[in-house]
Amino acid sequence: MTNSTKPKVLTLDTINSNIRTVEYAVRGRIAIRSEEIRDELAHGKKFPFDRVVSCNIGNPQQLNQKPISFFRQVASLCENTDLLAEDKAELVSQLYPADTIARAKKILKTLGAGIGAYSHSQGAASIRQTVARFLLERDGHPANFNNIYLTQGASAGVQAILGLLTQSNKTGIMIPIPQYPLYSATLAYLGATPVHYLLEEESGWTLDIGSLKTTINASRAEGTDVRALVIINPGNPTGQCLDAGNMRDILSFCYEEGLVLLADEVYQTNIYNPETKPFVSFKKAMMEHPNEAIRTGLELVSFHSISKGMVGECGRRGGYYECCNFDEKVLEQVYKMASVSLCPNLHGQILVDLMCDPPRKGDVSYANYRAELDGIYESLRRRSKKLEGVFNAMEGVTCQPAEGSMYLFPRIRLPKKAIEKAASQGLAADAFYCEAMLEATGVCVVPGSGFGQKEDTWHFRSTFLPEEHLFDDFCANLSKFHADFLVTYSD
Amino acid sequence: MTNSTKPKVLTLDTINSNIRTVEYAVRGRIAIRSEEIRDELAHGKKFPFDRVVSCNIGNPQQLNQKPISFFRQVASLCENTDLLAEDKAELVSQLYPADTIARAKKILKTLGAGIGAYSHSQGAASIRQTVARFLLERDGHPANFNNIYLTQGASAGVQAILGLLTQSNKTGIMIPIPQYPLYSATLAYLGATPVHYLLEEESGWTLDIGSLKTTINASRAEGTDVRALVIINPGNPTGQCLDAGNMRDILSFCYEEGLVLLADEVYQTNIYNPETKPFVSFKKAMMEHPNEAIRTGLELVSFHSISKGMVGECGRRGGYYECCNFDEKVLEQVYKMASVSLCPNLHGQILVDLMCDPPRKGDVSYANYRAELDGIYESLRRRSKKLEGVFNAMEGVTCQPAEGSMYLFPRIRLPKKAIEKAASQGLAADAFYCEAMLEATGVCVVPGSGFGQKEDTWHFRSTFLPEEHLFDDFCANLSKFHADFLVTYSD
Repeated sequence: MTNSTKPKVLTLDTINSNIRTVEYAVRGRIAIRSEEIRDELAHGKKFPFDRVVSCNIGNPQQLNQKPISFFRQVASLCENTDLLAEDKAELVSQLYPADTIARAKKILKTLGAGIGAYSHSQGAASIRQTVARFLLERDGHPANFNNIYLTQGASAGVQAILGLLTQSNKTGIMIPIPQYPLYSATLAYLGATPVHYLLEEESGWTLDIGSLKTTINASRAEGTDVRALVIINPGNPTGQCLDAGNMRDILSFCYEEGLVLLADEVYQTNIYNPETKPFVSFKKAMMEHPNEAIRTGLELVSFHSISKGMVGECGRRGGYYECCNFDEKVLEQVYKMASVSLCPNLHGQILVDLMCDPPRKGDVSYANYRAELDGIYESLRRRSKKLEGVFNAMEGVTCQPAEGSMYLFPRIRLPKKAIEKAASQGLAADAFYCEAMLEATGVCVVPGSGFGQKEDTWHFRSTFLPEEHLFDDFCANLSKFHADFLVTYSD
Repeated sequence: MTNSTKPKVLTLDTINSNIRTVEYAVRGRIAIRSEEIRDELAHGKKFPFDRVVSCNIGNPQQLNQKPISFFRQVASLCENTDLLAEDKAELVSQLYPADTIARAKKILKTLGAGIGAYSHSQGAASIRQTVARFLLERDGHPANFNNIYLTQGASAGVQAILGLLTQSNKTGIMIPIPQYPLYSATLAYLGATPVHYLLEEESGWTLDIGSLKTTINASRAEGTDVRALVIINPGNPTGQCLDAGNMRDILSFCYEEGLVLLADEVYQTNIYNPETKPFVSFKKAMMEHPNEAIRTGLELVSFHSISKGMVGECGRRGGYYECCNFDEKVLEQVYKMASVSLCPNLHGQILVDLMCDPPRKGDVSYANYRAELDGIYESLRRRSKKLEGVFNAMEGVTCQPAEGSMYLFPRIRLPKKAIEKAASQGLAADAFYCEAMLEATGVCVVPGSGFGQKEDTWHFRSTFLPEEHLFDDFCANLSKFHADFLVTYSD
């Protein structure tokens, strides 16, 4: 036995080198610093503000958005099944609307073994059937519950499908710029090649098919095996909604080019101009495409989540994806990989069931459910419009509207001095700006460089989730910070 | 636009080829067939039995094990926080013991944002602090909550750490044979090399250091970069518990050979001979190792779960791992990777908190908690001993005792005719035996070939989780099946 100290087995140089290259700015350097400040505030340290406001992540309940009562009532009855016993019925009826009790009993009956047992690895069949009915209702086209996979948040689904697609470092996946960094991070981990296509900011972050074609041709000419196209609709961080004609062209493009289409549709109910820019699912667009070969042949995966919309149940980690037109043998492999992790958590699964089959007109809980839902929706819409106005009123800032999602992605034009100062600290100019914002206001946002952006442009992503009664102060703080920043670094 | 039908982008030949090689027998072919039979039974089809008994997976609540009331009561109050409102206090006090209400309030207060918000990506700090206190209490040695990562079940933790360790297909990870196939499946997905070391069945599935040395030398001579050793203690599927001397030698071996030690300790409370074979954690063994360099230098990861023990909350997907003696820069990378998936689900996190800090003597809920826990434990122990006896009474079967875990792993000696029949169907002999068992009795177990076993030996893994009032029938069915099988295939 020796007493000499040996070097570590695991160091930055010896770990999986793909991991080193992963970046996820949504919870990166600035977010970590914001948590430190939150701790320091709690321990009495003085800052120019009283609290940290986390606008770096779409996490509505962290900013006190109330959960939908019906969902939580049903879930709590599934959790504590003693409350459903005969001898407690009278007491419980004073605490729970009758339809929440009925719904909990129904869920437990169809689950069979309750929420404490592993379910089917794809998620409980009864809940996948609920999702299939929801999809039929939403799109007017049937869905097969065997093609639906419940997941721990949409992120887990995206990771599973990107893992399935990746054969080698030659595998290319087209992702938008700007993009939600789950995509770039997962591709970096897998060692696959991200193939970037640019969204056009000036026209409202639109997607140009011509530019998709140029991009894929260039990438294939370099030897990349481009196999899939990721579309985030409504956009994250960019908030735009695709129109039906554009979607039809995207479907044709994927089919012609032999690409699997990955449709990240987690913001499908965060739609703020529903008359002019309604949400249309890629499933619906595909099923109504004039080309039959596309309807029956295009491989499409659509992702959804319980974390977004008016549901906002981020902490549960629930979601699903539907695979359309997949080879059965491939679906078996997807199941096999899901089975290694046993199953998605049942609390997330239950909430998928409730999200997809909420109270209906005539149900006891309907009026309250509707009021809560509409309240959250209208407030989100008001806040999105207000913040958009505030950004556009700032000097050197332009901001496209959020047609959907929970984010605004303003473009900021920064003085040369600020850009130089940032560079001297080894920072991107927008990261420098966002760090200054955090230290001055307590507001945590994510620099555009964390999502990718056109060269020599700078942005940041902010949610519009701060509470409405604090929202004017929040906006005023940002405006003051921006004005001060420009003064400090004026040329 | 063309109407010709194109080939699928994704086929068995074009997906990630690592995925094709993944095998996970616990939910594989036989388990899938058992689900079909369950469906067929529900639709009235006749079988020689009334119900499918799933002994393929440690899923106690599927077989009607009752959840611990205290856990579910607290969790349901965290779920439906309306129950904690002042105006409901009187009603709720008739349904909930006072300490469950106090505990729910405490959890919600320390979480800050409730269970509907993303937490810190490592898991909520307050819950990691609870885990650290639990480890101090269990081992008598402090734990740093910054080194603890909450996960969605132990599986997710194992996947994360194996992902961190894997640099290339030259990376070797030592795993026992037999092993829990999470390990082989994850290494196959990652493209790393499993380095098998054999457990010695005759001496009670013991681990021989000499054989570890032979194995690692041979593997390194072939150019494999062996970087970690996986130990499952108590064993899965094998049920043995390591003794302290053996553990000391394993720690020395890892340190001398420059290996990270991965200790899968999820069955740490499923201990059935506590006087002669108590559970000792590798953390404790390491902290009390005579070699200081090992105490302060060996990189150890220990995994735990809420799915096993007397908790049995499989459906929630909760667990944690602790990293000891890791490089800080590496821990930052582990955090970064966790952050891409945002956070482990909060329901699982809460149950980690409750498991690690259950009711104490003097608490209102203590007596009931203790009675439930002891009831489950004593019943598991009785059933393990009974089934062990049943297996050993079968012709040609020998079965080591389950000192721990939820499984028995009997060795079966099969007639030549059965082995030939199996081969003619392209099946391993034990898979053929297990399929015959399923079709005859409705009992679903996993063939030894799904875990790996010494050449020319055959086994299967069965849980002993069927309900106690049905257990004698269950045992009788297995005995009858085995006798009939031998008659059918007698030479």
